[in-house]
Amino acid sequence: MAASGADATAEDSAIREGEVAVALPQGYDASLYFIGRIHTPWQRRQDCPKNGRESDAVCRIELDPRWSVGLTGLEGVSHLLVLYWMDKARRDLVLQSPNHYAERRGTFALRSPVRPNPIAASVVKLLGIGGNVLSVTGLDCLDNTPLLDIKPYFASTDSVPDALVGWHAKRGR
Amino acid sequence: MAASGADATAEDSAIREGEVAVALPQGYDASLYFIGRIHTPWQRRQDCPKNGRESDAVCRIELDPRWSVGLTGLEGVSHLLVLYWMDKARRDLVLQSPNHYAERRGTFALRSPVRPNPIAASVVKLLGIGGNVLSVTGLDCLDNTPLLDIKPYFASTDSVPDALVGWHAKRGR
Repeated sequence: MAASGADATAEDSAIREGEVAVALPQGYDASLYFIGRIHTPWQRRQDCPKNGRESDAVCRIELDPRWSVGLTGLEGVSHLLVLYWMDKARRDLVLQSPNHYAERRGTFALRSPVRPNPIAASVVKLLGIGGNVLSVTGLDCLDNTPLLDIKPYFASTDSVPDALVGWHAKRGR
Repeated sequence: MAASGADATAEDSAIREGEVAVALPQGYDASLYFIGRIHTPWQRRQDCPKNGRESDAVCRIELDPRWSVGLTGLEGVSHLLVLYWMDKARRDLVLQSPNHYAERRGTFALRSPVRPNPIAASVVKLLGIGGNVLSVTGLDCLDNTPLLDIKPYFASTDSVPDALVGWHAKRGR
């Protein structure tokens, strides 16, 4: 959830001027289990940090006990890639005007929760594990967000320190 | 798909010695659209590279034309986070013995395609865009893999060069 994770778009059903929606496909192709819930200090979207690195709040990832054994071996892992479901987002926009950016951009050039499959991916720091609960920093989502997956973060394949997002760099941030 | 992306587990329905499966939940909680297909040189799992950085093969991400406008603004983006669906993987294992590691590990300590929600996340380098097709390097998946999402990769929030995966580091790689 970089850059626009806390965008108000997620809870808006209205389209802003210049935004473009497409007809959604007739049916779905695959299905997901919610495997737990993420607990954060933020109850309203406008209270969420703009991205996970803007806050050092400790959040709790609570895994459904059904899956607890799957945490075996996670003790020595420093960072995780956490996938979660932005369940309040509309899915049909292809051009968006997030309210803190002036220009319209394509959905796939943004980290907005509004996308065909509203799966967010956040890199978090793992602070501790107690039973089926992980303590982490680096999240920016609403309290009670549904959890989809937890993966170990491998610097060798996941870290690209010199990656550039052209439109974002030009904004001078 | 770091570390075990090309694992043969994905196409096995058998459980290996020591692996542990749980009963899957009664129903699903959310649904996905396949928004395109990923084209790679690899037709069989055993031909896939072990992770995306082991190969410089150029792969094509073909987006369903319905969503093409969503690529607007992606020109100046150097790297992408690509989410795709590992549609051949079983979903009920919590302890796994990937065949190139000796020890069993929990599903959430592995990047194996075998997980409750078989969503893979790979960081790729964007080489070019032609219409609704992206040319990229950094993938390790089978040809024709279903595409779920394309996100711009932000070094500021997605890159952690000093992240450690303890069990993997101990293996001396």
